[in-house]
Amino acid sequence: MVDTKKALLSMISQPAEDSGNKVTVVGVGQVGMACAFSILSQGVSSEVVLVDVMADKLKGEMMDLQHGALFLKNAKILASTDYAITAGSKLCIITAGVRQKEGESRLDLVQRNTDVLKNIIPKLVEYSPDTILLVVSNPVDILTYVAWKLSGLPKHRVIGSGTNLDTSRFRFLVSQKLGVAPGSVHGWIIGEHGDSSVAIWSGVNVAGVRLREINPAIGTEQDTENWKDIHKQVINSAYDVIRLKGYTSWAIGLSVASLASSILRNSNNVHAVSTYVKGMHGVQEEVYLSVPAVIGTHGISHTVTQTLSKDEIFSLQSSATKMSVVQNKLEF
Amino acid sequence: MVDTKKALLSMISQPAEDSGNKVTVVGVGQVGMACAFSILSQGVSSEVVLVDVMADKLKGEMMDLQHGALFLKNAKILASTDYAITAGSKLCIITAGVRQKEGESRLDLVQRNTDVLKNIIPKLVEYSPDTILLVVSNPVDILTYVAWKLSGLPKHRVIGSGTNLDTSRFRFLVSQKLGVAPGSVHGWIIGEHGDSSVAIWSGVNVAGVRLREINPAIGTEQDTENWKDIHKQVINSAYDVIRLKGYTSWAIGLSVASLASSILRNSNNVHAVSTYVKGMHGVQEEVYLSVPAVIGTHGISHTVTQTLSKDEIFSLQSSATKMSVVQNKLEF
Amino acid sequence: MVDTKKALLSMISQPAEDSGNKVTVVGVGQVGMACAFSILSQGVSSEVVLVDVMADKLKGEMMDLQHGALFLKNAKILASTDYAITAGSKLCIITAGVRQKEGESRLDLVQRNTDVLKNIIPKLVEYSPDTILLVVSNPVDILTYVAWKLSGLPKHRVIGSGTNLDTSRFRFLVSQKLGVAPGSVHGWIIGEHGDSSVAIWSGVNVAGVRLREINPAIGTEQDTENWKDIHKQVINSAYDVIRLKGYTSWAIGLSVASLASSILRNSNNVHAVSTYVKGMHGVQEEVYLSVPAVIGTHGISHTVTQTLSKDEIFSLQSSATKMSVVQNKLEF
Amino acid sequence: MVDTKKALLSMISQPAEDSGNKVTVVGVGQVGMACAFSILSQGVSSEVVLVDVMADKLKGEMMDLQHGALFLKNAKILASTDYAITAGSKLCIITAGVRQKEGESRLDLVQRNTDVLKNIIPKLVEYSPDTILLVVSNPVDILTYVAWKLSGLPKHRVIGSGTNLDTSRFRFLVSQKLGVAPGSVHGWIIGEHGDSSVAIWSGVNVAGVRLREINPAIGTEQDTENWKDIHKQVINSAYDVIRLKGYTSWAIGLSVASLASSILRNSNNVHAVSTYVKGMHGVQEEVYLSVPAVIGTHGISHTVTQTLSKDEIFSLQSSATKMSVVQNKLEF
Repeated sequence: MVDTKKALLSMISQPAEDSGNKVTVVGVGQVGMACAFSILSQGVSSEVVLVDVMADKLKGEMMDLQHGALFLKNAKILASTDYAITAGSKLCIITAGVRQKEGESRLDLVQRNTDVLKNIIPKLVEYSPDTILLVVSNPVDILTYVAWKLSGLPKHRVIGSGTNLDTSRFRFLVSQKLGVAPGSVHGWIIGEHGDSSVAIWSGVNVAGVRLREINPAIGTEQDTENWKDIHKQVINSAYDVIRLKGYTSWAIGLSVASLASSILRNSNNVHAVSTYVKGMHGVQEEVYLSVPAVIGTHGISHTVTQTLSKDEIFSLQSSATKMSVVQNKLEF
Repeated sequence: MVDTKKALLSMISQPAEDSGNKVTVVGVGQVGMACAFSILSQGVSSEVVLVDVMADKLKGEMMDLQHGALFLKNAKILASTDYAITAGSKLCIITAGVRQKEGESRLDLVQRNTDVLKNIIPKLVEYSPDTILLVVSNPVDILTYVAWKLSGLPKHRVIGSGTNLDTSRFRFLVSQKLGVAPGSVHGWIIGEHGDSSVAIWSGVNVAGVRLREINPAIGTEQDTENWKDIHKQVINSAYDVIRLKGYTSWAIGLSVASLASSILRNSNNVHAVSTYVKGMHGVQEEVYLSVPAVIGTHGISHTVTQTLSKDEIFSLQSSATKMSVVQNKLEF
Repeated sequence: MVDTKKALLSMISQPAEDSGNKVTVVGVGQVGMACAFSILSQGVSSEVVLVDVMADKLKGEMMDLQHGALFLKNAKILASTDYAITAGSKLCIITAGVRQKEGESRLDLVQRNTDVLKNIIPKLVEYSPDTILLVVSNPVDILTYVAWKLSGLPKHRVIGSGTNLDTSRFRFLVSQKLGVAPGSVHGWIIGEHGDSSVAIWSGVNVAGVRLREINPAIGTEQDTENWKDIHKQVINSAYDVIRLKGYTSWAIGLSVASLASSILRNSNNVHAVSTYVKGMHGVQEEVYLSVPAVIGTHGISHTVTQTLSKDEIFSLQSSATKMSVVQNKLEF
Repeated sequence: MVDTKKALLSMISQPAEDSGNKVTVVGVGQVGMACAFSILSQGVSSEVVLVDVMADKLKGEMMDLQHGALFLKNAKILASTDYAITAGSKLCIITAGVRQKEGESRLDLVQRNTDVLKNIIPKLVEYSPDTILLVVSNPVDILTYVAWKLSGLPKHRVIGSGTNLDTSRFRFLVSQKLGVAPGSVHGWIIGEHGDSSVAIWSGVNVAGVRLREINPAIGTEQDTENWKDIHKQVINSAYDVIRLKGYTSWAIGLSVASLASSILRNSNNVHAVSTYVKGMHGVQEEVYLSVPAVIGTHGISHTVTQTLSKDEIFSLQSSATKMSVVQNKLEF
């Protein structure tokens, strides 16, 4: 009987199982798939593994990506409901989680998602003890804290996607107002991802020129140009996009891919991500909030100490206190 | 009153409206968005315009992409229900279309989608008289014919995405069986996109070695290795993925982005795309079917004349006849 | 007689001559080739034309690039001593020029390079009346002025590569001192490219945090950390690299490719480039110096008005005066 | 005293030394630098180390690359004359070597380059015991054998760049004759890199259509279209380019970067590279020659068994015999 493969190919050595840049994405909803697809289509990794409990959806997404592998520089895409497939991942991205039920309290939601993480985090760490965990599920700051607790990993290796996305939205909106590329508009959104995020207006600049030096009222209620509205739009972005298209996907996917790139390439880029902030800006609780952080292959090596105004510090501390209250009621 | 922009920026000249590589995507369903996102995330174009009749969904998708512009090399993303926004597009990708209703005949579906195209094609051509039209909506071969008729454009500028995707699926599946990258496995699926596509087994090769020379029965019922099953899997791919995840998106998006790249970069790559095949392989009807074609900035410059077996020619001609029958009943 | 091409390929339409993103590089010395190669290997353009008077060298470089076209996404590379080949370029990069002879005065050198440009600029504009001119030859600021005069083009379409490279060197050196990626370290070098360039220490920042707020003496002689030395290293960079390897190539090539990308993608990024600065920062002469500028498909749309110290303004004005004196003696 | 870094950045963990994709390039001549630059500018690796004995040139090249790091996605570039800096490389590329002296015999040249490798290979393997060695220095086939012997590594981890470049040249030249992108023209040059390379005309195809089926005399003296001339041009390419510009650089650099990409991404692409061919096509000597090989993170996993004509086999065997004679006289 003919054996085409054998006749075509002479084996010289066992092919490598692992590229050394393996990324696992847990959760194949719109967010998880946008993360996986951004990472593959931008060439950030050549090996992506998908994990989910919904076997059918999982297989469908895997096949759909595999059918495009020819256009993804021959990337390797695998999927399984069994975490054994994630072994040796350099980075694990967690997008799994349940949505708020009608009438459900926020605390109840957080508890349910904590329970979800209890099933995920220990298995990821078991199969990839040297991995970085990147939490994307919401509420991201509390769930990053939860993932850290569940993982037993050092702080620098458990990161929340945090306000990296809010910052990208902010820079886009300012760029539109000025007619300059978002990449040339600098500004930072820190703190809690979402409603209580903090815009650091003092640092917003183009080519090193702070807009506050031109418009001292920028970001305040007194500003006749109403720049503050841009921060409001950032806060409303998720709500608006969800109302209009049902969910958010592309921007969070790209935002996560940018973090994955800094990790896999060991680039030491600064991103606003959720990290352990006890002791920073007077925060006294064991909570995770976003601040600018230097990111490389080991995760976070440094955080950037920004000079914050009283209001900004107060806002961070309030978020910390609120989150701590929630966290203390969680059952691990 | 302060004018921050004026104080920050001195105008030297009017900014350019147009990058010269503008791509329009009509239809913001899963397929349209996967096309737009693949084009942006792979850097194929820096300017993408979305058009749809669903204003809310359209705005939501536009915003979600814009929020990631920072990670897309500062690409420009716009959207409108008004085709004026598409003016000057180098390439227009049509993904709009209705789905089959329960009990609806195939002809009725085609007629309904023809009616959809009647609203789209003339406007695209009006605003971008020099554009290439790339039809993705299904049934893609007939709808490419329809688009050609409606557009009044020369044949080489109206292209159907055709079996570029089927070919990618085929190469992936063969690559898995051999343990070789899909990019190093060569083979072509031509003819009608979908159930009656034709696998050209005679040409399947790795490094110029035809698998048929090793296994003369390859692709036939007599083959003890059952390679034919791979073509069956290709045909079932869309059904399988739709059953598992509800729709197909990533692979078609990447496949379309590869075509867009060949057009915008004028690369003269060969792709299997749907084109006017009257006179080729004995086809006598005015129909569109996929054959390998050389693609550049003007669209299709050449088709590749493959040596087909009797069965393959018969299959192509049957598809052509069937399609012609449908086309003749369509009301334009 | 057999005609393989005819039997293989059926012509459907004339292939396109032009990709719409054609870039001409004049001068195939180390700098010109590093520009061309950076543009091709980073996928900035798919069509590069080389022009030089040295026919042999020119052909050798063209062939060497062509032999790698397979790895350059099938880019088209052409070369000729005849400017007709440059027709329709979106961007023309001028790297040609003679080197200083022993004992030659700076003015004599400029006059000789002006004479070189007299042979180049009118032909480029003749064949590509809508092109952007990007001058790289040194002394770049004066030669950009000369190119502007010779071209008859509006100011925004004649750009000098200026301190885009000095800025990149500066950001790298600061990044090394801090352990942060150069892309996350912001700072600007403006003014004359080379010895009398100006470092805008007030704007140097990481994540919006100005280093001057931490170290008020930064950039001055009083600074105990001696950051000023970094600017000295920037100024000495070209000398050092030329002494060590004989010429500079990679960094200037990449710097020019970044400008080409902003132009071809119409991205509106801000770069420090040499532009007409009469009227800015009190400069009264018709000279070209680098300031941060917004760059798109039309060239420079805006300049950024930085807040400069008295010393910085004085330095710019001195450069302007010196250059004006030289310019006034040039024979066109 | 102020400490700007400390005030700006709070350390959370030690930054990672190693990205996991480190590439060493030994030899910073035109070839070595084109390899390093291609790898960096195409984003194949984010960490490149240069080694050479010429300390000045080495430092100059390192600085010139570092000055462009901002445009290389923040890649890390280091250099040293001390091999300790190469520790942990995933891939080591050897481009070092001396040139033929006037009147020097080929054997003397090979002996001198063997002596060069004696100083390089053991140190590379000492510091990176798990590395892949990729030999580029000429005569590449014999020197790959030498590197294998000196390294003590298994065969699949010592690879010669071989005819990957000749193949790229061949595909370009055929593409020009047909008006099709080189990426869509398939054909292979195998055997000895250089004068006695073998063009496998039987496998040359576009979209699976073998040109030999159209033109049975293709590649022979009887061919009225004289395709054989293309192979002659391939063989003369290096001579021609060296005569015209003094050396070859871009195409070999890109060719090596494509191999590096397949290794670092574990892509299993097929490339024509120099490997241990004893036992293939009747070769009986322990020699290295190029055949198509599947390349991934472990190096070569399989070779592709092509069907060769008698002439082709004879040619390979002759090369093997000649090389074996030389090898047997070498002193290790």
